[in-house]
Amino acid sequence: MTVIEKLAALRKLMQEHGLSAYIVPGTDPHASEYMAAHWTETTWLSGFTGEAGTMVVTLKEAKLFTDSRYYLQAGIELKDSTIELMRASDIDCPSINDWLISTLEQGAVVGVNPEMWSVNEFAGMGREFAEAGMGLKSVDLIRPLWTEDRPSIPLTPLYEYEVRFAGESVADKVSRIRKAMAQKKADAMVISALDEIAWLLNIRGYDVEYNPVVISYVVLEKEQVTLFVLPEKVDAAAAAYLKREGICVKDYEAVFAHIAGLKGTVMYDGAKVNEALYEAIPEDCRKVNVQSPVLKDKSHKNAIELEGERKAMLQDSVALTRFFKWLEEEAFRTPQTEWTLMEKLHEYRLMGENFVEESFGTIAGYKGNGAIVHYAATADNCAEVKPEGMLLLDSGGQYLDGTTDITRTVWLGGEMPQQAKLDYTYVLKGHLALGHIQWPRGTRGNQLDALAKQAMWQAGITFGHGTGHGVGHFLGCHEGPQNVRTDMNPTVLEAGQICSDEPGIYRTGEWGIRIENLVAVEPAPRMEACTTEDEFLRWETLTLCYYDTTLIEMSIMTPQEIEWINRYHQKVYELTAPLLTAEEAAWLKNKCKAI
Amino acid sequence: MTVIEKLAALRKLMQEHGLSAYIVPGTDPHASEYMAAHWTETTWLSGFTGEAGTMVVTLKEAKLFTDSRYYLQAGIELKDSTIELMRASDIDCPSINDWLISTLEQGAVVGVNPEMWSVNEFAGMGREFAEAGMGLKSVDLIRPLWTEDRPSIPLTPLYEYEVRFAGESVADKVSRIRKAMAQKKADAMVISALDEIAWLLNIRGYDVEYNPVVISYVVLEKEQVTLFVLPEKVDAAAAAYLKREGICVKDYEAVFAHIAGLKGTVMYDGAKVNEALYEAIPEDCRKVNVQSPVLKDKSHKNAIELEGERKAMLQDSVALTRFFKWLEEEAFRTPQTEWTLMEKLHEYRLMGENFVEESFGTIAGYKGNGAIVHYAATADNCAEVKPEGMLLLDSGGQYLDGTTDITRTVWLGGEMPQQAKLDYTYVLKGHLALGHIQWPRGTRGNQLDALAKQAMWQAGITFGHGTGHGVGHFLGCHEGPQNVRTDMNPTVLEAGQICSDEPGIYRTGEWGIRIENLVAVEPAPRMEACTTEDEFLRWETLTLCYYDTTLIEMSIMTPQEIEWINRYHQKVYELTAPLLTAEEAAWLKNKCKAI
Repeated sequence: MTVIEKLAALRKLMQEHGLSAYIVPGTDPHASEYMAAHWTETTWLSGFTGEAGTMVVTLKEAKLFTDSRYYLQAGIELKDSTIELMRASDIDCPSINDWLISTLEQGAVVGVNPEMWSVNEFAGMGREFAEAGMGLKSVDLIRPLWTEDRPSIPLTPLYEYEVRFAGESVADKVSRIRKAMAQKKADAMVISALDEIAWLLNIRGYDVEYNPVVISYVVLEKEQVTLFVLPEKVDAAAAAYLKREGICVKDYEAVFAHIAGLKGTVMYDGAKVNEALYEAIPEDCRKVNVQSPVLKDKSHKNAIELEGERKAMLQDSVALTRFFKWLEEEAFRTPQTEWTLMEKLHEYRLMGENFVEESFGTIAGYKGNGAIVHYAATADNCAEVKPEGMLLLDSGGQYLDGTTDITRTVWLGGEMPQQAKLDYTYVLKGHLALGHIQWPRGTRGNQLDALAKQAMWQAGITFGHGTGHGVGHFLGCHEGPQNVRTDMNPTVLEAGQICSDEPGIYRTGEWGIRIENLVAVEPAPRMEACTTEDEFLRWETLTLCYYDTTLIEMSIMTPQEIEWINRYHQKVYELTAPLLTAEEAAWLKNKCKAI
Repeated sequence: MTVIEKLAALRKLMQEHGLSAYIVPGTDPHASEYMAAHWTETTWLSGFTGEAGTMVVTLKEAKLFTDSRYYLQAGIELKDSTIELMRASDIDCPSINDWLISTLEQGAVVGVNPEMWSVNEFAGMGREFAEAGMGLKSVDLIRPLWTEDRPSIPLTPLYEYEVRFAGESVADKVSRIRKAMAQKKADAMVISALDEIAWLLNIRGYDVEYNPVVISYVVLEKEQVTLFVLPEKVDAAAAAYLKREGICVKDYEAVFAHIAGLKGTVMYDGAKVNEALYEAIPEDCRKVNVQSPVLKDKSHKNAIELEGERKAMLQDSVALTRFFKWLEEEAFRTPQTEWTLMEKLHEYRLMGENFVEESFGTIAGYKGNGAIVHYAATADNCAEVKPEGMLLLDSGGQYLDGTTDITRTVWLGGEMPQQAKLDYTYVLKGHLALGHIQWPRGTRGNQLDALAKQAMWQAGITFGHGTGHGVGHFLGCHEGPQNVRTDMNPTVLEAGQICSDEPGIYRTGEWGIRIENLVAVEPAPRMEACTTEDEFLRWETLTLCYYDTTLIEMSIMTPQEIEWINRYHQKVYELTAPLLTAEEAAWLKNKCKAI
């Protein structure tokens, strides 16, 4: 079926159900950002392959709402689809609900699949539609349409994630979460976020590309932990591990019946738990909607997790050093494309100790493609790369030790435009300012965001993506609750949390520049001049990889910034060199020489 | 009655009403920050004279919750009162509700006067108490106790604020607000904020010290504007003006009966309108709780208001130049105190064209008193000032042309500690960084706040007050909705809004340093290097007064910062000199010489 045929079939079903609109969000029943192929309904319906998008189909129109990272990509992929791009990051773009309210008549009914919407989203949408005299109906219209070639839910086995990597036993984690439940007088807690389950039970899997999670639900009760998972996924070793940890195992779909049998007070995170699960909770239960305590606990990396992250970063540093050396010295003896560079980088990462897979699809954006923020080259559709111009390379690894995510932008050769140097240096200045700030305890990420932008703002430049996302430990390379974004996230930054620091500048058709390190919150030493008892926090830079100094416009760098670069380069060299050959070390030493 | 006797009498009444606690907020029925003396119930009860504080009295304990500006002051004023200070700005300080919930038993009932609580506050408090199994009761226990010496509601006349100052007619303003009402399908809007009423009806008064407002309510209907005000306040001229503008006038207390007669949809700002007014709205009316459109409209200063602000600033510059020249050359021929300096500054301001009164009580904080953030010296209780050490001077004027608010910190003589220079320079760097930033449209004040703190944060220093507050036009020197604070205020900064830019550093017992200008949001010129269609905004600096350059530690200043200072000093001199005597101009020229 073509996209146009799919839309026609959907509209026929909508009419049969009396619906004026149908919404397909880009998520799964676990509120995941990355999904198993089974749930990529937006992509199936629209042809848009970006990681974040929501389709809204009325009887006359079809709209794809996506954020600025995907504007260029969506523009290309939606061509000839009759689907119109809604630029959701733009100030003037209406919300989906507002757009539907302004488009549909009073009395119109909008359909959604309740498994694909969190309790909070469903309630908020229902309220807004009701105020506008419209209705909301639960119905899955994609299942009857997407019958051929729909991938099954993955059946790959789950496995134990050893305490020597996780740093804390399941018993200790469960005991801490039960304390949080007791504070809310809860008898049971429903957990549906896949990374929360993986963290809590020290399990990992292969169910979602780049995310070592296991498609499952957990119900945590006072005396019992129950994991709901397809039985095919529990092999003998997994069964033995789960039994040892005292975890009951039931079938994936049995979660609804189990929840229906709960008594007393049931706690759930309405931002994560889907509406279908919520509706399974018995009427007479007291329901407590709170941010999952697992989310916060998981974000505070313990000492073993942090030590693992440092080891993973060193593996990454070696891989990237070898890759960039190859790129400079050997690559262009034969023709290269964005895709061949991605493959080469993968080869180098594969050599790393405890490497499992990439933590997301590598972004190799050459020249103008670098300006497509989450550009994804494919083997068939990618640019040829020559030894000239700008290359943006955003990549990361899932190591048993931890998760990495790093962006470097390098100049491959040819005459360097002054604006390229200025852009690179504005980005670098922002990256350094954010990465070296210390702040009083109680500060949120959105208070620090402007530090990464002030240099480019003064030149009238800004960018549309988040400046920093939380990062999991051998889990999602995006995790909450912490981040550094403009959004009104109330989370204050706390010791042990990992964030990315990745400002960027994007010139359509010319180049994209982004510089990204992962940084972990740590207490700052008390300074003599301090005026308060307030504790200060700062970042420990975890990522190890040199910056391309040829792109730096030195005339706008401060002595402090130069010192930060030189100190960092010295650390990168000293830690990485012992893992390199003498020739590689010499090459890296030159890249790390003082500026 | 002493404070201890008042507390005993209140507790007796609480017991008679079956209350376990009673809360007295520092506000009035108009949600004012500054109040007519009639409503200063917290001060009457506690003896604490700070501008922000809430008393919470249980049968056993009495607590005053106030923010960090007033910690030192409250500590002094509450001595021997049995009232304990609750440091509300501290991260670990419980909220009033949380403290009451943790202190009182289930079934306890808390009393409040519904006129003193906004609809939103009352609802939120009621919800939290209900969840904890506690009750909330509406009852005024202060009125029966505060019988002697309670000041009456002011009876001073209201007057027309001419369009040549206001810049827009009442008819135009009312028409714009009625459009906002129509968008919400509202038939009537209740307005209770005094500055909103003054702005909307182009009236001013003398009812609240430093705030030229008129104690009143307004009900705006489709065909009628009704002002509720004590009849004594409307003299013949005022009556003629109100009649000319088509404004109906009713007695102040008649607002309740008028509201009780409304039909259809009633709009109100639940953050401002008090619970007692809300309860007067008929049951069968639809009630729409939205941020008052007057608040936003009022914050966007029109061209005439902005031109007026610039004129007022020039008057202030002349007054401050004369004051500082006198302080340097003549003051110490006779003994001086913080109070005599305040009087002298008042004398100089009085000479200014269109000066009406101060916009708040001048803060002259000498040495350690400067560290008491909103310190208020009195004639009887103030420090002697000698020609040595640090003086913080925060003052402002209400001119018919506009409202000013400026802080300068100066060194009076003697050996200058290096830390004093560093502290001053950190504050100055933050003040300059915030004042010279440009940012993309859609940015909130809380995103810019850290720019004013980054320099001091790196030295382990921070401060507890807001960095910038909105400022009215010949109205409150604090106004919303815009500000630059850490709070999660969703307001984005928009052209025409005025804010202060006033970071500070406070060393208990040593000195306080604050530097404050008022700045207005304006569109920034489009720059060549920009990568987006986004419009950028920036600040126009309104305040005119030199900075004490003797306190600057030049070694940590950037060339950019030095250029900003020199450019500003040149502007201050060029604009102010024509209004000064030759001798004064020569003195100012020296203060403004390039660094």
